[in-house]
Amino acid sequence: MDRQLLIETIRAKQSFLCVGLDPDPARIPAHLGTGPEAVLAFNRAIIEATSDLAVAYKPNVAFYEAMGADGWNVLAETMAAIPADCLRIADAKRGDIGNTATRYAQAAFEAWGADAVTVAPYMGRDSVEPFLAFEDKWTILLAATSNPGAEDFEFHGGQDGSPLWRKVLEVSQQYKGAERLMYVVGATRPEWLAEVRAVVPERFLLVPGVGAQGGSLEAVCKAGWAESLAGGLLVNVGRSLMYASAGEDFAEAARTEAWQLQKAMALELSTSR
Amino acid sequence: MDRQLLIETIRAKQSFLCVGLDPDPARIPAHLGTGPEAVLAFNRAIIEATSDLAVAYKPNVAFYEAMGADGWNVLAETMAAIPADCLRIADAKRGDIGNTATRYAQAAFEAWGADAVTVAPYMGRDSVEPFLAFEDKWTILLAATSNPGAEDFEFHGGQDGSPLWRKVLEVSQQYKGAERLMYVVGATRPEWLAEVRAVVPERFLLVPGVGAQGGSLEAVCKAGWAESLAGGLLVNVGRSLMYASAGEDFAEAARTEAWQLQKAMALELSTSR
Repeated sequence: MDRQLLIETIRAKQSFLCVGLDPDPARIPAHLGTGPEAVLAFNRAIIEATSDLAVAYKPNVAFYEAMGADGWNVLAETMAAIPADCLRIADAKRGDIGNTATRYAQAAFEAWGADAVTVAPYMGRDSVEPFLAFEDKWTILLAATSNPGAEDFEFHGGQDGSPLWRKVLEVSQQYKGAERLMYVVGATRPEWLAEVRAVVPERFLLVPGVGAQGGSLEAVCKAGWAESLAGGLLVNVGRSLMYASAGEDFAEAARTEAWQLQKAMALELSTSR
Repeated sequence: MDRQLLIETIRAKQSFLCVGLDPDPARIPAHLGTGPEAVLAFNRAIIEATSDLAVAYKPNVAFYEAMGADGWNVLAETMAAIPADCLRIADAKRGDIGNTATRYAQAAFEAWGADAVTVAPYMGRDSVEPFLAFEDKWTILLAATSNPGAEDFEFHGGQDGSPLWRKVLEVSQQYKGAERLMYVVGATRPEWLAEVRAVVPERFLLVPGVGAQGGSLEAVCKAGWAESLAGGLLVNVGRSLMYASAGEDFAEAARTEAWQLQKAMALELSTSR
């Protein structure tokens, strides 16, 4: 899904909801059973119940990797279950160099069938450009995340007082294929989001942290909106949607949660700024 | 393998060689065939031919991940083929937070059977401590790598002019379980290695970049030696050993390469400093 189609999809669906698919085997509703098949059935039901209300799905690869070789197939099958009008984001946070990065990109884009992959910037240009070389795919670089540990290094200040995350935004704009970059920016501190938006007015931002982590959709939109990109935001909601109910009605409960988010997003899309 | 046993193993084997196992399917000797079985047979032959001369093996997970679900099994089988007197390092460069990091740690330490895993520091404390929580395992944090892109962010200077990699070393010493940390430091610029050693005199350093990438063993030892740790270095050699011959004698050729490295390492271990 290219940039123009993503913008059109957001406008058509009146939504910029990204659904996190981080299935904890211990939280799969009991009636689905256990094991890899249960996880896949759970994911498929969540996708089916929400795909008209969402524009992206984001499985976190760690949850699949921890399941062993079976998890690998569950991840690929989950990606295959996501309809074509939704962006398939592999949240992998990979970061290695040269031909090794190319292998990670092949795993994400070719073997798992993802449209986008999250990447860690620590090692610099030659750890990012191999992902950007895939012309019809997106690379989503970590910038300012919302976890407590973000303070340790992401805010390490340059000699001009400029934090590392700003350097990541600025330097990565020079990478070959930078037009295929998005950035991860946490929802819990909207003031950072506003600063990020000022540096990269033309990029989509993947924003986790709304919902269970306490970020507010309204504050995120106020801080990070880019009108020419239909907002330029993909707001990820994970646990509060996936585990809205632990019972047999889990998919309906997830749909209700997604529907409420989509209504709030439609309102943001109709707001004149 | 705990710290004391690692030191004793280095002294007993007179080696601090780490063998990189990054099998490129296109470079597997033709007589082994193709596909996952050929990669596993290749790895096993390399391990068997070199394990008395090495103290660690380091499969890079990307090479296995790119093979699909089969690669997952090849990785676990490769780990299982590494004898108990060698450290099994999963070069995964993972970096995610909280319970997600725990899943990556479970994948590496439990599912793949690794003794150690490489981790990217970008997201800070809550992306590293879940790995350190595994008490009999090692976490190897990226510090100053030897790739060209390292200049982009790893050397981003603080307001006191202190680079990010130094901040990573200093801050991570405060993490819970820091005694189970090692660091990745590239071999190609020994001046960094000397600076790193000055900040973390009591930590093992995993040093890639000797061999195909042009780093010199002698310069690495001169810059990074810690006598109380039998040097405190794990020097990784990958391509120049794995692909020493493309023919049926590939394992013998790898052994010859490993033997030459071990001789040079024995000389370093006997040097008075």
